[in-house]
Amino acid sequence: MAGNSFGNIYQLTSFGESHGIAIGGVIDGCPPGIFIDIDFIQNELNRRRPGQSSISSQRKETDKLEFLSGIFNGKTTGTSIGFVIYNKDHKSDDYDNLKDVYRPSHADYTYQKKFGVRDYRGGGRASARETISRVVAGAVAKLILNELNISIKAYVSSVGRISVDKPYNEMDLSLAETNIVRCPDKLIAQKMIKEIEKTRDEGDSLGGLINCVVFNVPPGLGDPVFDKLHANLGKAMLSINAVKGFEIGSGFSGTSKKGSEHNDLFVKIDDKIRTLSNNSGGVQGGISNGEDITFRVAFKPTATIFREQKTVDIEYNPINVIPEGRHDPCIVPRAVPIVEAMAAMVILDSWLMNKTLDI
Amino acid sequence: MAGNSFGNIYQLTSFGESHGIAIGGVIDGCPPGIFIDIDFIQNELNRRRPGQSSISSQRKETDKLEFLSGIFNGKTTGTSIGFVIYNKDHKSDDYDNLKDVYRPSHADYTYQKKFGVRDYRGGGRASARETISRVVAGAVAKLILNELNISIKAYVSSVGRISVDKPYNEMDLSLAETNIVRCPDKLIAQKMIKEIEKTRDEGDSLGGLINCVVFNVPPGLGDPVFDKLHANLGKAMLSINAVKGFEIGSGFSGTSKKGSEHNDLFVKIDDKIRTLSNNSGGVQGGISNGEDITFRVAFKPTATIFREQKTVDIEYNPINVIPEGRHDPCIVPRAVPIVEAMAAMVILDSWLMNKTLDI
Amino acid sequence: MAGNSFGNIYQLTSFGESHGIAIGGVIDGCPPGIFIDIDFIQNELNRRRPGQSSISSQRKETDKLEFLSGIFNGKTTGTSIGFVIYNKDHKSDDYDNLKDVYRPSHADYTYQKKFGVRDYRGGGRASARETISRVVAGAVAKLILNELNISIKAYVSSVGRISVDKPYNEMDLSLAETNIVRCPDKLIAQKMIKEIEKTRDEGDSLGGLINCVVFNVPPGLGDPVFDKLHANLGKAMLSINAVKGFEIGSGFSGTSKKGSEHNDLFVKIDDKIRTLSNNSGGVQGGISNGEDITFRVAFKPTATIFREQKTVDIEYNPINVIPEGRHDPCIVPRAVPIVEAMAAMVILDSWLMNKTLDI
Amino acid sequence: MAGNSFGNIYQLTSFGESHGIAIGGVIDGCPPGIFIDIDFIQNELNRRRPGQSSISSQRKETDKLEFLSGIFNGKTTGTSIGFVIYNKDHKSDDYDNLKDVYRPSHADYTYQKKFGVRDYRGGGRASARETISRVVAGAVAKLILNELNISIKAYVSSVGRISVDKPYNEMDLSLAETNIVRCPDKLIAQKMIKEIEKTRDEGDSLGGLINCVVFNVPPGLGDPVFDKLHANLGKAMLSINAVKGFEIGSGFSGTSKKGSEHNDLFVKIDDKIRTLSNNSGGVQGGISNGEDITFRVAFKPTATIFREQKTVDIEYNPINVIPEGRHDPCIVPRAVPIVEAMAAMVILDSWLMNKTLDI
Repeated sequence: MAGNSFGNIYQLTSFGESHGIAIGGVIDGCPPGIFIDIDFIQNELNRRRPGQSSISSQRKETDKLEFLSGIFNGKTTGTSIGFVIYNKDHKSDDYDNLKDVYRPSHADYTYQKKFGVRDYRGGGRASARETISRVVAGAVAKLILNELNISIKAYVSSVGRISVDKPYNEMDLSLAETNIVRCPDKLIAQKMIKEIEKTRDEGDSLGGLINCVVFNVPPGLGDPVFDKLHANLGKAMLSINAVKGFEIGSGFSGTSKKGSEHNDLFVKIDDKIRTLSNNSGGVQGGISNGEDITFRVAFKPTATIFREQKTVDIEYNPINVIPEGRHDPCIVPRAVPIVEAMAAMVILDSWLMNKTLDI
Repeated sequence: MAGNSFGNIYQLTSFGESHGIAIGGVIDGCPPGIFIDIDFIQNELNRRRPGQSSISSQRKETDKLEFLSGIFNGKTTGTSIGFVIYNKDHKSDDYDNLKDVYRPSHADYTYQKKFGVRDYRGGGRASARETISRVVAGAVAKLILNELNISIKAYVSSVGRISVDKPYNEMDLSLAETNIVRCPDKLIAQKMIKEIEKTRDEGDSLGGLINCVVFNVPPGLGDPVFDKLHANLGKAMLSINAVKGFEIGSGFSGTSKKGSEHNDLFVKIDDKIRTLSNNSGGVQGGISNGEDITFRVAFKPTATIFREQKTVDIEYNPINVIPEGRHDPCIVPRAVPIVEAMAAMVILDSWLMNKTLDI
Repeated sequence: MAGNSFGNIYQLTSFGESHGIAIGGVIDGCPPGIFIDIDFIQNELNRRRPGQSSISSQRKETDKLEFLSGIFNGKTTGTSIGFVIYNKDHKSDDYDNLKDVYRPSHADYTYQKKFGVRDYRGGGRASARETISRVVAGAVAKLILNELNISIKAYVSSVGRISVDKPYNEMDLSLAETNIVRCPDKLIAQKMIKEIEKTRDEGDSLGGLINCVVFNVPPGLGDPVFDKLHANLGKAMLSINAVKGFEIGSGFSGTSKKGSEHNDLFVKIDDKIRTLSNNSGGVQGGISNGEDITFRVAFKPTATIFREQKTVDIEYNPINVIPEGRHDPCIVPRAVPIVEAMAAMVILDSWLMNKTLDI
Repeated sequence: MAGNSFGNIYQLTSFGESHGIAIGGVIDGCPPGIFIDIDFIQNELNRRRPGQSSISSQRKETDKLEFLSGIFNGKTTGTSIGFVIYNKDHKSDDYDNLKDVYRPSHADYTYQKKFGVRDYRGGGRASARETISRVVAGAVAKLILNELNISIKAYVSSVGRISVDKPYNEMDLSLAETNIVRCPDKLIAQKMIKEIEKTRDEGDSLGGLINCVVFNVPPGLGDPVFDKLHANLGKAMLSINAVKGFEIGSGFSGTSKKGSEHNDLFVKIDDKIRTLSNNSGGVQGGISNGEDITFRVAFKPTATIFREQKTVDIEYNPINVIPEGRHDPCIVPRAVPIVEAMAAMVILDSWLMNKTLDI
């Protein structure tokens, strides 16, 4: 209800502030008997972790995951899975000078207005550090989806004005993890990295786009009306810090097409119903149709920039700020595992929900 | 859980198929003592109704609303509000020839795969006729928001390739309701109407965009983490039939800006904290900041076109279809009140939820 | 949230006041392909209906059920099932004299304090007429449970001080429906009926107990911790009008036994694990163990009595009341189908939820 | 959904097994600005802790609470509150001999049937050690209720066949905490203690009753229909380990009264509406009426007894068991703070929910 839980059957409840004692959560509704590959999960966390490359925040965190319950002899038991990641390298002193200031385009002011109080250290609950819990729950979901042969692959498709225009199915998406910007096109990846470095050196920041594809989803996932599969995916993505937009399939560009161009014609291929095009992005009437699920997520440029900006303090007086702290000049590459994690939770949840249709 | 309910405190549960007996729903969590202005609500339904203009479906429905409970002496009692709209002009015979066919980019195939059965008459539950319930619940929400001085205004900002580029605050949005395409720019509205008529005469269809603005929202609405205000707005919009994309504030275009251009600087104006720009779209960290909430919704072109299309039948054999039935060549103008209704429910729900913060 | 919905997967949302236009509801999460035996469902409603015997209220209601959606060609489609029962014989005039009075042990005063307004006609939403929706949703649940060979049988085990002491498995429970008080022991049933008639003639009222048995429940239903099977059954029963107590298995009397007397020893019978006794009432650790589920529900005497009683009016002045209207001198016999309906919903919901444990 | 969360607005999600790494949980929906009196909360945990007296289990646990988030400068921030209590004295070896056995009237068999796997060490998730999380969340709720002048007092009213018959308002309930059996009547307390000691020495166990009173609840709490205040209280209590029954007000004994005896007549006292008797237990029509809320909870005798019992092993072969481990011969005294904690959560949740009625 108060917004710290996500999912219906497979549900994550999360907690933790950037500079508090720990980040953690509870996964409820995880089926029993799932082998918990701790190395895989820790690796997913490492993909999200700061300090992993020259273009990300230099905060040093091991983000060491500890499971506290719900696992016995290496497998899930069907009971709730508590987990915790203790914060280590939180230099809260960096933030003391921001205690009385509302930083532009941050959540300082809105948290204060909502709650009448805020943990100003490192953004508190509004910090992207919160997404650690999502990555853990998403990684567990991926372990299950893996048994179902469903896989998810996200990649950076644009950084600032530099974008990769090739469709996903004309690239080797596994290449995305071979460079620090997580773009599967090597040449464009190099351009993106240079652009981020240049912008960082200017004390400025960049936004960008993440494309995500879910492969091998069976037809039938998603519920009619309010819990359409892409509505739940959209909410999942829009709940990630810095996200300002979501589109599935043809999305915004599809609005300028005509129906005769846009409709995905059904054909029979290998005894299955398939579509000749995939403007639907794998979802029709809110329910998966068996094609690849494709969507895009828009991230604004990082709000923290290392330039003097005008703002007001908590007494509403004008003031100039320059942050100290450590921040990513472009959050998009590190958001790739977060997008995948949220997608994994939504897809698994829909899959589990479908089990209740049969008696 | 099964996707026919929306909202936490103020909650709509809906039912009904296009060619079934009735469309209806239950509103739970509506505060007591609200005067139910039945004329206003019926008028909202009339804005959505088919047959209202030359560019919409010619299905003749009065969409007469009947409240069944929860109202006494003209006011809400705090108990659940049941309501029903009986279907009148449902010519189910039009659909008999579609019984065995999966229409391209419709929900026929996905419903069949999910449920193993479908009410094929007029799209059944997947019909946009389902949105009647949303308009009713949204209209009641608007009555409450009106007492709080919060207002919502949506309008058509593009149809196919014709778009209005002026920002919302440079137009008189009330003009949107003075033309059948619901665009506040009269000249562009005329072009849109002509484009729709031309496309309709070609047997084809168009998509488009709806912009929506919520005025006078107090700072503090929306919950951190998963229930960010724009995440809930996004889900609400993406759950509307034919929607493929959602963006708040600068949205997708904001991804190519730098932080120094994109950040909304705080200033003090009239003893309030305001921002000099509104790239945030009125939401920061998932919580309203007191600025206008601005978002855009992308609608694909209507899937039903009056041209022969290739598809398959329920035995997976290739077949050609031309629909009969009655359809909108462009659904976007009629979707304006639906977008407003969903926004009203989300905003009210957040507002009510905030009441629980104080003891 | 506001208390008009029940269940997780199989969910009823209900509406309606005693003297309003209609009672109704929406069933969400009903699996598709279920044959809707309308005669069976109407018959369940008839079991609950007033005016069915000399010892129940003489209000004449046909309680004619109309399904509005979610059913196609006689079977459920998996979409939400709307239904409505129009009120016919509501003599609201009977209640005009009670408009300004708070009747003792009714909900008049508490509704007024909570909502600041109340529909005083016939108790409004607090009327037992609300339970019609429960009986409908319970009857649909029974149709599904029937396919699973799970059956539910409730009966009246006491009325006032007259009780049947034989255990359920030493009686033919089907005899309960052969007399108007719904007690399977014919002789005691006659005593109960006489006691009710006598009490009614004195203008007074009686309470009593309902025993309920659920047969053939597989082991494994119910969730650990907060959603224990008997916790959900208990909530279901305690939400029925006039219920003041619930116990499962040995219940209150079990508290005076020693562990060595109370423990149910496991044995192997016919290749199944069974227990030699059933003090657990078929539930251990919140989860069904395969034995019959047995519980008891305590109903207070009807609050409406036809004697002068002291109370206060809405201005807090002392006043005497004698109700007019029509009421049951003992509600317990008519509550039997309601208890069964609520049990059916809980058992089905747990059964469906269990489907999500397997991948 | 999977049963590890409780509450609507004020919500606890819990995790942890008896002999796992830790017990913990997340409290969501706690209002901001609440001073967290850690000593008070730890003291509530100490009341529940084993090893506190000669009649409770000798497991030595400090049950040291650590808050991990949601608190800043000693006060709640409105974000989710994570907490953890590490298990210290878990002698899992004691349970190795029970690995292959289904203990009578325990949850071993039902967990195995439900999940296909179980953490057999100390009962795993089914252990009463799980209630630690409830006590923490209940203690935080009590801190808030305290600011609202609402207080909760539970006490042991019977142990086996020894019971205190005086009504609660003729005793000094604060005396309950002055003896190890938590009965406010000193003489009866002594008898109870002797009975427990004698039964323990016989290797047997006892059940009993807890009475609970909630003082100073304003009228208006609780929702009509399914979320009646006593239905939610009932579910809360029935979800506690070993509870087999719940009754509010006159409860089971009220069923043998006549309406004329049972009705609580309204009178005006000190400008308030009060009732002359309180058979309703402070709740009418599911909503609090301003009188003391009174209810009783029935606990079965502890299932673990130190006598040889017949049962079956996991291969369904007959076997005799004698447990080792450490157990309470009567769990009831230690359950007093748990009953209070669950009541606190329900009352606070209803109180917060009521805030949403006003606009």
